[in-house]
Amino acid sequence: MSRTLDLAVIAGDGIGPEVIAEAVKVLRVAVPSDTKVETTDYPFSAAHYLSTGVILGDDDLESLRGHDAILLGAVGGDPRDPRLAGGIIERGLLLKLRFAFDHYVNLRPTLTLPGVQSPLRDPGAVDFVVVREGTEGPYAGTGGSIRTGTPHEIASEVSVNTAYGVERVVRFAFAQAEARRRKLTLVHKTNVMTYAGSLWQRTVDAVALEHPDVEVGYQHVDAATIHLVTNPSRFDVIVTDNLFGDIITDLAAAISGGIGLAASGNINPDGTFPSMFEPVHGSAPDIAGKQLADPTAAILSVALLLSQQGYPEVAERVTAAVTADLAARGAQTRSTTAIGDDIAGLLARA
Amino acid sequence: MSRTLDLAVIAGDGIGPEVIAEAVKVLRVAVPSDTKVETTDYPFSAAHYLSTGVILGDDDLESLRGHDAILLGAVGGDPRDPRLAGGIIERGLLLKLRFAFDHYVNLRPTLTLPGVQSPLRDPGAVDFVVVREGTEGPYAGTGGSIRTGTPHEIASEVSVNTAYGVERVVRFAFAQAEARRRKLTLVHKTNVMTYAGSLWQRTVDAVALEHPDVEVGYQHVDAATIHLVTNPSRFDVIVTDNLFGDIITDLAAAISGGIGLAASGNINPDGTFPSMFEPVHGSAPDIAGKQLADPTAAILSVALLLSQQGYPEVAERVTAAVTADLAARGAQTRSTTAIGDDIAGLLARA
Ligand SMILES: CC(C)[C@H](C(=O)O)[C@@H](O)C(=O)O
Ligand SMILES: CC(C)[C@H](C(=O)O)[C@@H](O)C(=O)O
Repeated sequence: MSRTLDLAVIAGDGIGPEVIAEAVKVLRVAVPSDTKVETTDYPFSAAHYLSTGVILGDDDLESLRGHDAILLGAVGGDPRDPRLAGGIIERGLLLKLRFAFDHYVNLRPTLTLPGVQSPLRDPGAVDFVVVREGTEGPYAGTGGSIRTGTPHEIASEVSVNTAYGVERVVRFAFAQAEARRRKLTLVHKTNVMTYAGSLWQRTVDAVALEHPDVEVGYQHVDAATIHLVTNPSRFDVIVTDNLFGDIITDLAAAISGGIGLAASGNINPDGTFPSMFEPVHGSAPDIAGKQLADPTAAILSVALLLSQQGYPEVAERVTAAVTADLAARGAQTRSTTAIGDDIAGLLARA
Repeated sequence: MSRTLDLAVIAGDGIGPEVIAEAVKVLRVAVPSDTKVETTDYPFSAAHYLSTGVILGDDDLESLRGHDAILLGAVGGDPRDPRLAGGIIERGLLLKLRFAFDHYVNLRPTLTLPGVQSPLRDPGAVDFVVVREGTEGPYAGTGGSIRTGTPHEIASEVSVNTAYGVERVVRFAFAQAEARRRKLTLVHKTNVMTYAGSLWQRTVDAVALEHPDVEVGYQHVDAATIHLVTNPSRFDVIVTDNLFGDIITDLAAAISGGIGLAASGNINPDGTFPSMFEPVHGSAPDIAGKQLADPTAAILSVALLLSQQGYPEVAERVTAAVTADLAARGAQTRSTTAIGDDIAGLLARA
């Protein structure tokens, strides 16, 4: 039985198009011969906004919704451009998609890869996954300010946490733990953010009763950053809120050898909406168009996409090809395209 | 002219009393002969709460207020004790003092010290200070929940930021930068927390006009964690909100060789209330009473206290003695008391 994998591709800004070209190349080589990959390019990006005034309209959401999944490169323009201030692209594009498509799981694996130098002296064998909540917390966008611009300004940000929202992501995290080394760590700040913290802790405690074989732990987010640099191999599955997840996954990427290798999936596990896969790195405008970007994070995001789309073995082959490529990499510098070609070549020969 | 330095000492729980004993010992040796150190011990701690039911009363605040400064060891009992759940001691004691005494500057220096091994392969020469806001942000305690314990629970946390509160801590940070390498980095998450972020950014931009010689930068908190592990020597002064400051100062302590060396000052620069000095580490109940704790962080907190109390040269001598002690430390293990004795001895001979 043949299948069409129908993908929306948002290459985005900066190095986005370069890394996405390699990711799609690898994807096409990786899928079984009875699977047809169809891609539709969408122009959404900071550049598109600056030239058209549109970030992402409701009709655009409707078009994207028709695809099986979304592959996104990187979005964001010159950080000093006043027209892009206040995260207008990040919120109007990336966060809008996460919220509109109910990507309540933001899945970010961290793995020691061969040949990759960690900034840590002795990272050990790191292999954990952060299950970051994606649709609540301080990302809900319900802050505000009064007397703005006066000496009496008050600006507030509100973190919203619901039993519904926390339980579903905690359940997902426990399922991940069951399929891995059966260790789950809740990361929060329950000693200060007591209302949200209590909801998270009670939810983890309740769901834990259904998983007696999973060892459950807790760390304050500040302490978690210490453990991430002193003993990151202790972690298996971390479940955490949207903001804490944002912070610790950048740190996790850094200790495992850099944001150039970190992949992520914004997942709607219910399948009501397309999930979206993207490298954790940004658009890096300073090196764009120079074939200097490493497409590995984008290619590993394709592996996450394949796994979520029902091709777990293909996903493993892509990861294995990346691993083999990294192990052989040595000190030589290759162009973005050359890295993509090499990984695609490894897959074609496998 | 002789002076009395009148200190309140809250030794606290766990290793608190052990490290405080050494810190006071060093303080007594360090001060000039015309300064008399008077200490008053206060029993506030998790243990005190468990035996009396009182954490810190209004009359206790009144007594503490009469002192020149407060030296605090560590507070917190067994994390699994249900009577201490929800951060009751942290909030009822530590945060209560920070808020009641308007400690709007939480000052946390990070320094590469000799003989101390960083978990980083190549930390470089790290020497920066985090100026963390201490009386606002998500620490304001204005969250809440409804339908608690039901499937319809909503729990919220509110970060409160005022022009008044942000401006004063930003001014303090610029003054620090002027006295150091003239680099200031705002750390926030302006692309998501846009109301608070905008207030912080506008305040930094405005105060920067008065400091044309200070180079001002900005980093998102997630990106800051990457820079802290890949290139921490780039930082000079970081100014940030209460929660981001909590997170990045634990990370900063970790990369510079551990929380056992990290000192902090909770400062009321106006002098209306006594400032409070404490090691960043916790009470570590597992090693308490065994003379295993390193009193260095507590002793460096004494240096911060001395500096804030008008003894900057004495503070430098204490730091120099700690540095000399660390350089000579080698692989041998010394008791808590022995480390205090050695540092006091170095100071006495100097
Ligand atoms: C760009 C930004 C809004 C985003 C986030 O904060 O989630 C990014 O940092 C990430 O982690 O995907
Ligand atoms: C104990 C806790 C409330 C405190 C904080 O979050 O401020 C601690 O982590 C610190 O950094 O001093």
